[in-house]
Amino acid sequence: MSTDGRVLRGEQTRATVLAHAMGIASVEGLAGLSIGRLASELEVSKSGVFARFGSKEELQLATVAAAREIFVERVVRPALESPPGLDRLWRLCDGWLAYSRGRVFPGGCFFFATAAEYDARPGRVRDAVAAALSAWGALLERTAEDARQLGHLESTCDSRQLAFELDAMVSAANARSVLHDDDTAYDLAETAVRTRLRTLATDPTTLP
Amino acid sequence: MSTDGRVLRGEQTRATVLAHAMGIASVEGLAGLSIGRLASELEVSKSGVFARFGSKEELQLATVAAAREIFVERVVRPALESPPGLDRLWRLCDGWLAYSRGRVFPGGCFFFATAAEYDARPGRVRDAVAAALSAWGALLERTAEDARQLGHLESTCDSRQLAFELDAMVSAANARSVLHDDDTAYDLAETAVRTRLRTLATDPTTLP
Repeated sequence: MSTDGRVLRGEQTRATVLAHAMGIASVEGLAGLSIGRLASELEVSKSGVFARFGSKEELQLATVAAAREIFVERVVRPALESPPGLDRLWRLCDGWLAYSRGRVFPGGCFFFATAAEYDARPGRVRDAVAAALSAWGALLERTAEDARQLGHLESTCDSRQLAFELDAMVSAANARSVLHDDDTAYDLAETAVRTRLRTLATDPTTLP
Repeated sequence: MSTDGRVLRGEQTRATVLAHAMGIASVEGLAGLSIGRLASELEVSKSGVFARFGSKEELQLATVAAAREIFVERVVRPALESPPGLDRLWRLCDGWLAYSRGRVFPGGCFFFATAAEYDARPGRVRDAVAAALSAWGALLERTAEDARQLGHLESTCDSRQLAFELDAMVSAANARSVLHDDDTAYDLAETAVRTRLRTLATDPTTLP
């Protein structure tokens, strides 16, 4: 199939549309997406974009799915190169901070932006964003629990509580950095994560 | 002036419009505000609303200012009933959690919602929201520093770092609660705040 020019162009159009849509959504929100706007800004036919996505909501859902793939590629997969344990937990947090700081999406974390936008608006878009954030929270918690069971963290450590706190720190850094154009928030978050993990680690020297 | 019926009605209209605008903004965002929509939903004349606010941006700025007053009334003023020190710091955090949990604004914290919406869009609205959040962050930090200088917190405590972490915890509770309809995030945040303050307090028994 990939040698068929038409299909390739179709896939390229889809990728181009989604890349542009993710950028818009991270800055202005998912509500700012429309098939007409994307077609106009990308100078492609509106009917072509419509044929590929069908509706504004489908476009929004496809944009969330594409952002999730990028997040996994940038944050999750590199951390999973470490075996289960404390180092993997550290790398998840550190990778998240690098992902936000590096503006993989121009408006900072895609999910932070779109969750705040859709959190109080029930529907499929909110469900998709909530599912992505739940998966991230569950991964953090499972990784913390692995580290505890492996003896890397104190046996009394509450994995759910720790995952909540780590996520709170990195999210706050993203929020502050984007709002105030101030990158020092990432240093505060990194210090907070490191201090928290060192306090709970059975051997703090294993942390960077 | 307050005995003049016309002025009184004018003030009432303004208050009614702003109350409705704050509700919309906390759920859908400040971009969703328009003079036409407010006039229509409140069944008042569009020209009357226009005469009072002049433009969509002025309406947005007045809405941010009104929300800031409510925040001060609900969170800041009660905490300031305590003298400077650790108890005031605790009350600021605890009051913030109660303000978010109690849905003073239907979409959760007004400033969390609107900051995430406008953080990457430079302009007067972003500046107004950023100023409100900066004032909150500065109040937390100053209160933490007072507590340190009064000997309520360890002398080695980094007030800026602590303020960042406390704000991160309460904000994360708001985000998670609104997105997932899950109030247990407030318990996680309360535990995190209490644990953090107890660790740094010179006399942990003074904390609730």
